[in-house]
Amino acid sequence: MTISPTGEALRKALDGPFHDLKQRWRDEVPAESMIRDTALGMEEARDWTLDHLIPLARSGFATAGFPAAQGGTGNTADSVANFEMMAMGDLSLTIKSGVQHGLFGGAIVNLGTAWHHETFLPGAMSVELPGCFAMTELGHGSDVQSIETSITWDPETSEFVVHSPSPSATKAYIGNAARDGRMAAVFGQLWVNGEHQGIHVALVPIRDETGHPLPGVTTGDHGHKGGLLGIDNGTLSFEHVRVPREMLLDRFGGVNEAGEYESPIKSKNARFFTMLGTLVRGRICVGGGASSATRKALTISVNYANRRRQFRQPGLGEEIRLLDYLTHQRRLLPNVATAYAFGFAQNQLALELQRVTDAGGADAHAARALETFAAGMKAAQTRWANDTIQECREACGGAGYMSDNAITLLRQDADIFATFEGDNTVLLQLVAKALLLNYKTSWGEMDMRGTAQKTARLIGGTVLERTTARSLIDRLVASANRKPESQKLRARGWQIQMFEFRESHVVEGLAQRMRAASKAEDGFEAVNRCQPHMLEAARAHIDRVVLEDFVEAIDGCADDYIKALLVKVCDLYALSTIEANRAWYLEHEAFDPRRSKSITATVDELCGELRPRSKELVEGLGVPEAWMRHPRTAVPPLAGAAG
Amino acid sequence: MTISPTGEALRKALDGPFHDLKQRWRDEVPAESMIRDTALGMEEARDWTLDHLIPLARSGFATAGFPAAQGGTGNTADSVANFEMMAMGDLSLTIKSGVQHGLFGGAIVNLGTAWHHETFLPGAMSVELPGCFAMTELGHGSDVQSIETSITWDPETSEFVVHSPSPSATKAYIGNAARDGRMAAVFGQLWVNGEHQGIHVALVPIRDETGHPLPGVTTGDHGHKGGLLGIDNGTLSFEHVRVPREMLLDRFGGVNEAGEYESPIKSKNARFFTMLGTLVRGRICVGGGASSATRKALTISVNYANRRRQFRQPGLGEEIRLLDYLTHQRRLLPNVATAYAFGFAQNQLALELQRVTDAGGADAHAARALETFAAGMKAAQTRWANDTIQECREACGGAGYMSDNAITLLRQDADIFATFEGDNTVLLQLVAKALLLNYKTSWGEMDMRGTAQKTARLIGGTVLERTTARSLIDRLVASANRKPESQKLRARGWQIQMFEFRESHVVEGLAQRMRAASKAEDGFEAVNRCQPHMLEAARAHIDRVVLEDFVEAIDGCADDYIKALLVKVCDLYALSTIEANRAWYLEHEAFDPRRSKSITATVDELCGELRPRSKELVEGLGVPEAWMRHPRTAVPPLAGAAG
Repeated sequence: MTISPTGEALRKALDGPFHDLKQRWRDEVPAESMIRDTALGMEEARDWTLDHLIPLARSGFATAGFPAAQGGTGNTADSVANFEMMAMGDLSLTIKSGVQHGLFGGAIVNLGTAWHHETFLPGAMSVELPGCFAMTELGHGSDVQSIETSITWDPETSEFVVHSPSPSATKAYIGNAARDGRMAAVFGQLWVNGEHQGIHVALVPIRDETGHPLPGVTTGDHGHKGGLLGIDNGTLSFEHVRVPREMLLDRFGGVNEAGEYESPIKSKNARFFTMLGTLVRGRICVGGGASSATRKALTISVNYANRRRQFRQPGLGEEIRLLDYLTHQRRLLPNVATAYAFGFAQNQLALELQRVTDAGGADAHAARALETFAAGMKAAQTRWANDTIQECREACGGAGYMSDNAITLLRQDADIFATFEGDNTVLLQLVAKALLLNYKTSWGEMDMRGTAQKTARLIGGTVLERTTARSLIDRLVASANRKPESQKLRARGWQIQMFEFRESHVVEGLAQRMRAASKAEDGFEAVNRCQPHMLEAARAHIDRVVLEDFVEAIDGCADDYIKALLVKVCDLYALSTIEANRAWYLEHEAFDPRRSKSITATVDELCGELRPRSKELVEGLGVPEAWMRHPRTAVPPLAGAAG
Repeated sequence: MTISPTGEALRKALDGPFHDLKQRWRDEVPAESMIRDTALGMEEARDWTLDHLIPLARSGFATAGFPAAQGGTGNTADSVANFEMMAMGDLSLTIKSGVQHGLFGGAIVNLGTAWHHETFLPGAMSVELPGCFAMTELGHGSDVQSIETSITWDPETSEFVVHSPSPSATKAYIGNAARDGRMAAVFGQLWVNGEHQGIHVALVPIRDETGHPLPGVTTGDHGHKGGLLGIDNGTLSFEHVRVPREMLLDRFGGVNEAGEYESPIKSKNARFFTMLGTLVRGRICVGGGASSATRKALTISVNYANRRRQFRQPGLGEEIRLLDYLTHQRRLLPNVATAYAFGFAQNQLALELQRVTDAGGADAHAARALETFAAGMKAAQTRWANDTIQECREACGGAGYMSDNAITLLRQDADIFATFEGDNTVLLQLVAKALLLNYKTSWGEMDMRGTAQKTARLIGGTVLERTTARSLIDRLVASANRKPESQKLRARGWQIQMFEFRESHVVEGLAQRMRAASKAEDGFEAVNRCQPHMLEAARAHIDRVVLEDFVEAIDGCADDYIKALLVKVCDLYALSTIEANRAWYLEHEAFDPRRSKSITATVDELCGELRPRSKELVEGLGVPEAWMRHPRTAVPPLAGAAG
């Protein structure tokens, strides 16, 4: 199978700075290394996953993010790109690597110091030391700060005592815990000489070389799950388990040789958020991985819709291709456009992660902005993934439900992405809180000026932070303002103004509501009633930043033909997003009913215009052709959706 | 576990005329008979399903719909109710029964005559004769009329020759085909003495007693699927397979002893639709089954949200129950209200099926109306099921992804309900076509009057057909019109007017567009552009009828307390449906932005008002307590969402 020159060029544009790295996967990793037999039972799937992770790790496809001293490249953006590619193959494999290299390895890299790196990273990288990331407990998932596991300093023996004081303190849903893990990075409340120092992480050996739990460690197996059968999620609990002083990951706080607690960060709260902040890569990976899975499902279903025919055109006698039906275009093509939008934004996010990592904590503002955008992109992409993969399944009809079609496995495996590395609803509230904080700051600064001017300024750059291409945006807006009404809808500047208006207006409204709520008698209920507005503010923010990243990517595109195609794809993304939110726009009189209907008509038109390029557009999504299909089927090739 | 008196009373109200039948399931069928180990592989799941179907069939839990002469009760509405109950246990079991009793058995009952009944029904009922319903082909699913399999009369031997002329004529996705089936009801184009008579059905033995395919029959196995692992879907193709004359199911057409084609229905087209019409029960079952699965998922997730706490209330120190968060209420409670709405409408649908069946074809108008509403309810309930079960999974967080939680299996098994027994997009277009036909009829009748009056009359009863409670509706509308603006939102009559306005306006608009399209040069493209409007018209119609059925059920409720509770549930259903469509209402200026926002606020309020009754409301959904959980888990009980 060869891909078209247009598909190739789109692929290059969407890969962006990661093109060479991603192309290496496509060139070097065959389907046998990546495609799991969908009929494997739980135990077989676990075997397959471990067996396939090891060679990938040894060939350097999963260890980019580790320090050069241990044989990595120290390039954390590349580790995100690797994760995204792996997710186009198999999500169990991807999450196994995510647990091993990203979370367990990442905790050692980011929270540990030189001795931990030298001692444990080689095994973490090669998978000779399979590890767990033991944060979540049965009683506390989203609310990490309330976990119950204790890590208590014993000055007598110079050891830490790791303990689960109650059944709800049991570490739960932990990958590698049920079977493969030998060591765990255990999150717990640190107590030193009777003083509480907040959450810290200790490395705790959990199994011996033969795989038996060590004394004091109880492991459990969550058994069968809704997907990710290759991951051995399980439970861990600790009965006064002792580890030497060195086993505490002490970059941000530990006990010195004199037996005293020491930390470069004074506030317990700041320490907690600094530690958690180093985990931001996990969220970026999960969001990107969800998008990868969705790209694969979209490619399969668009290819199917270009091939499959049903019902005859009256008179003509020829049967009609599914993708010639407007409703079918509507189901798939705006999602293809969204795949491009998220792809460009995800590239920016990975680069920003690299910049923040390189700054090594020097730019706290950038670090906070990164965390906010990472949380939002994780929630947005995983929500979209669940909805879209399901749409792709249904768009392939019965063929979409056969496992050899590959979509069903994606559907099952990607499902939990909405939950792990931060529940989406919780993450969106984090984003909203950050937006409110920005708003408050700018509000304070500008409190002396008139309201109208304030609003303009807010749109102009204060609340609406993180616009890497401000001058470009301003130019587009100015150009749109000069256009006649009839041409506004496809004017990028008008679309941007709509996105900005929605964000700034929702954030302002939220700020007012929250201010009122802070004075209410029943504080919880008052804030509770603002919750839907918080989610709305977060979504509006993400939508706007994603659009701006798309605009910047188009601006940087050298090939005129590809650029013109991406302009239409961006129109479809922007207008279908505005269409999806048109109730809000009408409620806030951003446009009238007539314009609202013409937006819908323009989305229809754009679907028709892009339909002839649908094959090339999905080629551009960059899924290796050979990975698209699960080869086990007993039926003739026609039944397979991807044949 | 006992359920509350309120839960009990709600359950009785929602069961309606099927309460005794449904209660028998709850009282007599233990979890062991219904709950599959979620970790079973494909072959084990197939064994489990067949093994568990047989005793259920023998105890009369699956054979209500068969004629009394063969030991059934001849009550087809009861067979729908049985299907709905089974779907609260296991969907593979349900679909196995659906294939065996509903489709294979149903084809014999409805398309066959006395000899077929006597000869084959006993085996079909007891599952001693496992059978297939071989309609869909690889090349043609939704477009049944274009299937290629031929059934050709051979006057020399007085046999029919069943043949698959091409690979795309292979029967595909057929339940019981891969493994268990011994006979198939094969749909094919009938040719008698060189003349094409349209689609007919022949019974064709496919395997011998040892399970080997018979000469000329090729069987295939679709293998692993996205769910319903207990169903052995496979392919069938025929190489000039001969069956005796009697094997044609000849109620609507066959070859007599003289070798001539005979049919009580002259038009080939009418014959096709009459035959297909007898299959309406399958669609009614699938829609009801999807709702049953969703009720189970809602019960599990509401119970979890009433138990699970996360994050502390500032100051108070107590951790907050998930269901106390407004966003969590928003995710679940409007869906609980919809479960009630669909439940009442589904009861009406089953009763109407019984009436049409009893009329034996005498009321063609009622039969057509039933087919339309069945198609719409199938599409609406299965769409809602996929969306809602996913929402329930996510609302249970990590616990929702563990298979012992039961939701993941529901998610996987219910998925395909959107596709089989008619792809939802195709079904909605059927509904729209029926609405247009009604509209055309009434338009013709009223073409002499003014437009304003026409519209009023159309709402009054002509386009908006099938209102079983017209006088009640008129009374509610009149009462709402007398209320002050501030009380309108919760006035049932106002809600009804909104639903009616949407339906009549969308149908009228569609009719105008279709009239214009019929004159367009490129007929296909012109009609194609109307497709989204067709889907919209169908959805608006279903919404309105479902609301009216809810209104009627409340009217018939004897218990004042339950009635008052159902009034709120109905408010929540009606207003959250209007809210979901508020973009449309604003575009058509049915209300202004201010009212639109107050609808959202009222939905929030209703969630708060119903939240204290959430436990009782899900008890009312009628899922047997013992069937709610899959008992295999290696972790402490806290992890299970339904513990």
